[in-house]
Amino acid sequence: MKAKFITLDGIDGAGKSTNLDTIRTWFEKHQLPVLFTREPGGTAIGEALRELLLNPATRANARTETLMIFAARQQHLDEVIKPALAQGMHVVSDRFTDATFAYQGGGRGLPLPDIAILENWVQQGLQPDLTLLLDVPLAVAQQRLSHNTSPDRFEQLDTNFFEHTRQVYLDRAAAAPQRYAIINSSLQLDAVAAQINQSLAQQFGLNP
Amino acid sequence: MKAKFITLDGIDGAGKSTNLDTIRTWFEKHQLPVLFTREPGGTAIGEALRELLLNPATRANARTETLMIFAARQQHLDEVIKPALAQGMHVVSDRFTDATFAYQGGGRGLPLPDIAILENWVQQGLQPDLTLLLDVPLAVAQQRLSHNTSPDRFEQLDTNFFEHTRQVYLDRAAAAPQRYAIINSSLQLDAVAAQINQSLAQQFGLNP
Repeated sequence: MKAKFITLDGIDGAGKSTNLDTIRTWFEKHQLPVLFTREPGGTAIGEALRELLLNPATRANARTETLMIFAARQQHLDEVIKPALAQGMHVVSDRFTDATFAYQGGGRGLPLPDIAILENWVQQGLQPDLTLLLDVPLAVAQQRLSHNTSPDRFEQLDTNFFEHTRQVYLDRAAAAPQRYAIINSSLQLDAVAAQINQSLAQQFGLNP
Repeated sequence: MKAKFITLDGIDGAGKSTNLDTIRTWFEKHQLPVLFTREPGGTAIGEALRELLLNPATRANARTETLMIFAARQQHLDEVIKPALAQGMHVVSDRFTDATFAYQGGGRGLPLPDIAILENWVQQGLQPDLTLLLDVPLAVAQQRLSHNTSPDRFEQLDTNFFEHTRQVYLDRAAAAPQRYAIINSSLQLDAVAAQINQSLAQQFGLNP
């Protein structure tokens, strides 16, 4: 079986952390070799860039931020993702390029075609086989985030920012439905898990 | 007078630090408002990226490194260079995009058209009015560098690397002679200063 590249994405508060456990359990159940990783980060330089990006004192503008995110992604692809796939390991990444379109494009207003130029530069055609897009209404996401007592820079941003972010995610999923599974993540946990298991099973041709 | 953007470039050991003083003196003599800056760096985030790049432990590959350099450059342009030019200050930058073509392209082997894509993405057509290219044979540069007791990562690279680096600088100067002044920097200090003063004077329509 060709190794699959799977990404998990969605706005803050959509439940990525919780649902990563669901994905992990699914791979264990089916005894498939898998590597879990995250963006930005996943490499030494990526983690250093992630720290710089999350530090409010750095004040990177949207274009600078986007170049730094793609720098981390380049190293992440070359050092982690591609070697794992080449060895037959499936890879699950917590966030990938969809987040850049959504956050830096939708949220911070960078033109989407500008992001596409960097996507091509870095990925040279490589795309996830499946993107699980966790979708929730803003109100649900915000209620979940309100329990978070140390909001980082991204989470301090306003409702308008997240509305645009969510919309770009949904637009991208609508434009390439064969790649995306939109997971309604405002349901109860087990109902969300059922959707994720179903999408993974379909991708791998297995029972959920 | 429209504010001018001037860059100083050349391989390590070509004498940039020494000749920055010559340029500084020229601007003082002519009482022209000028901002001196350097790449990578020149901003808080640029300095942080510069530190990451110079740290051998980060092991950024050539593509990652190039994206980081352009991230620093984006912020440098938006936060420092463009605002200064807009206020009528001339700007002299110690290194700019020519160094990326020379080092990451010529030296590390990244295809030059890939670098041009990022140049366009970041600069959107903005180019230096004048690039002073300090040129020396490798042997001269290496002899000068041998006095440097703490070689950083870039200076640990081999002769072949610097031959290619120098060649890209020269090729770029040959392709756009109206922008470049090739300064023979293997001569005595005062002869080098005379060439620099002459190029600046010509750019500003003043006496050397």
